Formats: sequence, C-alpha cells, structure tokens
Amino acid sequence: MRIAVLGGDGFVGWPTALHLSDLGHEVHIIDNLSRRWIDTELGVQSLTPMDSIQERCRIWHQETGRRIHFHLLDLATEYERLKLWLGESRPDAVIHFAEQRAAPYSMKTDRHKVYTVNNNTNATHNLLAALVETGIDAHLVHLGTMGVYGYSTVGAPIPEGYLDVVIDTPNGPREQQILYPTRPGSVYHMTKSLDQILFQFYAQNDGLRITDLHQGIVWGTHTDQTRRHEQLINRFDYDGDYGTVLNRFLIQAAIDYPLTVHGTGGQTRAFIHIQDCVRCIELALSDAPKSGERVRIFNQMTETHRVRDLAEMVSGMTGAKIAWLPNPRKEADENDLIVTNDQFLSLGLQPITLAEGLLAEVVDVARKYAHRIDRSRVPAVSAWTKDLAQRVEHDPEGKRLRSVS
Amino acid sequence: MRIAVLGGDGFVGWPTALHLSDLGHEVHIIDNLSRRWIDTELGVQSLTPMDSIQERCRIWHQETGRRIHFHLLDLATEYERLKLWLGESRPDAVIHFAEQRAAPYSMKTDRHKVYTVNNNTNATHNLLAALVETGIDAHLVHLGTMGVYGYSTVGAPIPEGYLDVVIDTPNGPREQQILYPTRPGSVYHMTKSLDQILFQFYAQNDGLRITDLHQGIVWGTHTDQTRRHEQLINRFDYDGDYGTVLNRFLIQAAIDYPLTVHGTGGQTRAFIHIQDCVRCIELALSDAPKSGERVRIFNQMTETHRVRDLAEMVSGMTGAKIAWLPNPRKEADENDLIVTNDQFLSLGLQPITLAEGLLAEVVDVARKYAHRIDRSRVPAVSAWTKDLAQRVEHDPEGKRLRSVS
Repeated sequence: MRIAVLGGDGFVGWPTALHLSDLGHEVHIIDNLSRRWIDTELGVQSLTPMDSIQERCRIWHQETGRRIHFHLLDLATEYERLKLWLGESRPDAVIHFAEQRAAPYSMKTDRHKVYTVNNNTNATHNLLAALVETGIDAHLVHLGTMGVYGYSTVGAPIPEGYLDVVIDTPNGPREQQILYPTRPGSVYHMTKSLDQILFQFYAQNDGLRITDLHQGIVWGTHTDQTRRHEQLINRFDYDGDYGTVLNRFLIQAAIDYPLTVHGTGGQTRAFIHIQDCVRCIELALSDAPKSGERVRIFNQMTETHRVRDLAEMVSGMTGAKIAWLPNPRKEADENDLIVTNDQFLSLGLQPITLAEGLLAEVVDVARKYAHRIDRSRVPAVSAWTKDLAQRVEHDPEGKRLRSVS
Repeated sequence: MRIAVLGGDGFVGWPTALHLSDLGHEVHIIDNLSRRWIDTELGVQSLTPMDSIQERCRIWHQETGRRIHFHLLDLATEYERLKLWLGESRPDAVIHFAEQRAAPYSMKTDRHKVYTVNNNTNATHNLLAALVETGIDAHLVHLGTMGVYGYSTVGAPIPEGYLDVVIDTPNGPREQQILYPTRPGSVYHMTKSLDQILFQFYAQNDGLRITDLHQGIVWGTHTDQTRRHEQLINRFDYDGDYGTVLNRFLIQAAIDYPLTVHGTGGQTRAFIHIQDCVRCIELALSDAPKSGERVRIFNQMTETHRVRDLAEMVSGMTGAKIAWLPNPRKEADENDLIVTNDQFLSLGLQPITLAEGLLAEVVDVARKYAHRIDRSRVPAVSAWTKDLAQRVEHDPEGKRLRSVS
C-alpha cells in the first residue's frame, strides 16, 4: 500500500512510519515539524539524541534499502498544498497523527489554547475536506484518545466508542446508538472530542472510511525498527509538558530525584507500549471499514495502573523515593478506569506488559542517557485554572513537597 | 448593562443591537463585516437596501439619541485585539452571533467548508479563551441551532439540550445527564455542534456562564426598532445560499415565479419571528446561569411547519403556483419535528405566529422591494455531495421542474 503518515516525525508517527516501511509499504511522511519547534520554544529536548527527519530517512535507507519519503507541509494552514499532494499521490491509507498532543501544553497559556484548537481542528478538517474533494477512497486512521470521555464515564467501563440509549418518542421508546458522550478535561482532549464530530459527519455525509484509535498513554522507546541503528532512535520526552507520568518517574529515578506524584496518585491511567502501538496501527489498517459504515473506534491500550502504583513499581526497580505534590490538573483525586479493548485483542494483539518491559526502559534509556537530563525540566508546570496556577506558582519546581516517602 | 454584540451587523445581530440599545443598555457591535463580503463574493444583495454599519449607527443616534458603538474586529483571526478590547471594555454580557450561518454556503465548495470550520470554531474558541484570560465574568449568550441534532432525534421531541441516560457500571446502573447527542447534517450545523463541546469545557473548567440558544429559522424583517427609519431596515436574504425557505417563497410569489419545493416538501422546520428572536435574547440575558452551572440551552422557536404547508400558506395569500424540484440536501424526505420550548414560554414570551405576521412580509417587504429582485439568484445551488451536485448541475436554475401544481 501507499501510506501517508501525517505527523510522521513525532513520537508515535516515526516508529509507525518505520514499522509500515519494514512491512513493505510505500511510506510518505507529511509533517510541519512543529514538535521540534515546540522543543525550541520550551527550551527542552528529547532525552534520546534525535536526528533531523531527513537524516533519519537517509539512515533508514542505508540500513534497509527502503525509502521513506518526507514532505514538509502544514496540514492546518496549507490546505491547497495538501489537496495537491493527495491528488497527485493518491494514498491507499492515511494515518493522521498531525495534532498537538500534550494536555499540559494545551493549558499553558491562552496562546497555547488558541494554537491547539486552531491547529488540531483545522488539521483534521482540512484532511477530511481534501479527501472528499480529491475523491480519494483512502482508509483514514486517526490517533484519538480515551481522554475524550473525561468526567463522563462515571466509573463505567470505557467502551469502544458508542453507547446504546433509549429515547422516548411519541411512538414509544426507541433504541439508538450514539457516540459515547464526551466530557474532556483539557483543551487538548477537547480537540479530540471535536475530531469525533468531524469524523461522524464526513463518514455519514461523504462515506469516508475512518478508524479512530482511542489511545492510552504510550510508554517505551524502542521498537524492532528503531533498534536497528542509533540514529533511528525514537524521541523520549520527560519535560513537564510532553513527558508522560511514567517517563518522568524514569528520569527522576535516574537522577535520584524523588518520584513526584500529584494529588493522591489515585488517578488510574491506561497504558500501551510503543511496540504494541505500531502493531495496533498495522492491525487497524488490515481491517478497514466500508464506505457508509459508521466510524470504527478502538481503544488502543493494554493495561491500566494507578499513578501511585506506577511510582511504586519504578521505586521498587530503582530504589527511588516518592514525593507527594499538589495536583495542577482539575480532576478527581481518585478514579477507577475500566477499559474495553476486545477489538484489538480479537485481531491478534499480544501486549507487552509494564511488568516485563519497564526494566529495559530504566537501563537502556533512562540510565544510558542520564547525562543529558535537564533537572529543571522535570516538574509539571501547566496549571488548569487560575486558582490552580496560583498554587503552583508559589512552588514552581515542586520544592515545597507535601511529603516524601 | 454594557453588552458586546459580536456579529452585530448581521441579520439577527443588528435588530438585537437596536433592541438592547432601546432598552437602555450600552451596546458595542463587534463585527468583521464578513457577511457583506460574502454578498460581494456571491454577487447578491439584501432585498432591502442596507446602509453601512457606520451609517446605521449614525441614524440610530439621530433618531433616538442613543449611541451604538461599532468596532471592526475579526474574532477568528485577531485574538490579541479581541482580548485587548475585552480587557478594556469589560462587558457585562457578550452576545455571540459572529459565525458563518448558512448551511448551503458551508457546503458550496471545499474552500467554503474549510472557511466555515476555521472561522466558526476559532471565533467561538478565541472568545472563550479571551474571557478566561481577562477574567471577565460576562454572561455569554450564543446563537446555536436546533439543526445540531440532525439525524439523531429519530422522531423524538427536541429537548432543551440534555438527555438523561443510564450507564451500566460495576456498581449497578447509574443515571447521567449528557449533552443531547448531535448528528449534524451540514458543515455549518457541524460547527455549532463543535461549539457545544467548547462551551461544555469552558463552563466546566473555568466556570464561564453560558447560554446557548438553539434557534429555528428566523422569519420577518421588521422589529419595533428597525421600523423607526428606512435606513435602519434589516437585511432580507433571498438567494439560494442565505435565503431561508420562507424568504424564497415570498420572493418567488412577488415575481410570479412558482414556489420551489425541494423533494416532497415533507421536511418540518421550526420558525421564529425576528421580533420574538430579539425578545428571547433579552429574556435569556435576564436569566443568567451562575458560575459552575452547566451551559443553559434553550430552544428558540415558536412554531413548526412542513415546507409544503408553508408553500401552501404563501400560495394562498398570493396566488403563486408551487413547483416540485429534486432535493440538493442529503436529508430524509419527510421528517416530524416536535420541539420543546417551555423555557422561553415560562419566561413570558408571547409569540408572533406566521398566520398573523406573514401577510405583512408579503406586502411591506417582498412586494415593496420587488423591483430589486435578481431572478437568477432565487434557486438553491449548493449540493451536499458529489452525486447530488451532478443532479443539480444539469439543472442549475431549476428550469427542469419536476412538476408545477
């Protein structure tokens, strides 16, 4: 297949491009390289030394003989160039990762909120409009998030996208299937909720074939392909905006900083290894919906853990202490999270668990590159509201720890 | 109160600004005048001769001694100027009409789809982000549409915004109130569905106080204020993009063109007179939600009619014939529409009915300005999908009528 990977220079995009190229597909990366610009803006960098996308593609060709084509294009602002490229290249599938993906970054200031909504909504909608306009019947696979549900799941298992409801009508009660209601908890998550409405419309009005992968937190750095050469390595973010909770724990452990848990650490999160992630995208591609079918929604995760349990897992492997801090996010202190992921399991996914893969991250990544860690970048700094901002402002680097255990 | 009317130069915005000014409020119109630019783009004009916004404001002052202040500002692209203006003016209420509001225009070409999503989503989101950033506790009243529900109401009465659902959890079934599910039928309607998600988020995360008015089709031209001077007259659109079904019937009758009904005319639409519309906005303003409250959603309509019944009503008053044409919209031929509007009735709204007000439109508007009608602009021209476009393309001016009765 000819596959376009939009956002193919990013954390999930790059290993996906490698994985699909390795499977023999003709891979085209479309990216505006905004993630690299954000590194520059924030003054942070990937823990792992990351080459330019052009250099990465060159190394991949040198190592495997395969070509990955890179096109510098801004999906959100260059609609006409996007349409031209699609019309000329006519991909069989389009994987859409080209959105600003960090909740804390999206809440940083009003400028970041405005940027995230403008970028993500226009990127997705431009793509949809261009597919209709060029008449390309490509399978669109989008990376969404289970975070769209936010407050709306009230302890119910997170389903794969839909909910059956009963609506009273003058002719008696009538069953209807609706998009599972969303109540996103950040501007970033909100944009993924907006995406769902865009997908619903274009699947219904124009018969676009769309799969929306509601992903959990991705952990892990290496895939079978990134391991092949030092210069193919994936990015590893540990700063307060882009670093996931697990990455921050790994880094904190590597520099003997206490593992910072916000609130009670009772928030349950869903996880998936990057290797499983690229495999899920392969599986989703192999099982495309038909035109006229509703949007397919898969939960792309393999296990759930409470944040404090993760901290204890990392602490157990490394001996690091745990520090308890106020929570800058507006969210419940404790939440259960039950997730359905039957669809990927039935397609043959065999997950890598944290219990078996985490030690490799500690040794092969966190300790190996510990000399590149910028200690000042480790705490989370974006506050969700003005009240929470004030609390965090008085303690920007988490020095006034609530307690250390 | 100091009230900002965003989009205050438009069809509902202008009479709202006059009505609120007449009530003694300090009114500021913020508008990028895009609706006038679209007239230029389409080569159409209001049936009623419409002066510049500056001239309209001058006449209002001359007639009443009251000032309406006009600020040329593009909500969607001038975030920083918007924030500056809000911070300096600190309005008590903000009425937000500043969105592209025609479904056919939003479906015209891919450029129009992209424009509508970009303009409407950024306009709404910029406003929300700026209110949070400036810390202004203004009541935000937004003009939405009942059209967000589209296919999702399955014959059920359209409620005022919310639906109670039962979700199964490990602790047994749990009741939850969700935003009534939407399945919009055009890009325009879709943007109003996106707005709902934006409002939900900002009400929940930042305690913004928001009322969303889900409006039906507005008819009528004059309000108590627009009648005061010829140069205060409201716009009257009759072209295929911006003209509502009723306006097109009125114009067709005035020029002895058959009333063009698309499909079976069995589509039921909800209506409200422009005078009731501005009164509803006054009522909504008087009953602001508290911070932390969910978004208030009112259905802003007063009666429902099938399109063919409207045609017959106009035909009965004018003797015009009725012509049956193919439907360029992707929608069901026949639909019932039962709408709840208890909230406005309980606040004291006394509706003007079509039965009593329609003749005045025929005489005072359609016949009076019949000499200004451009006959070529009367048929609807935007097709919802490529298949439908082909059917319409072969009959661009509706010459090949299916039948005339």
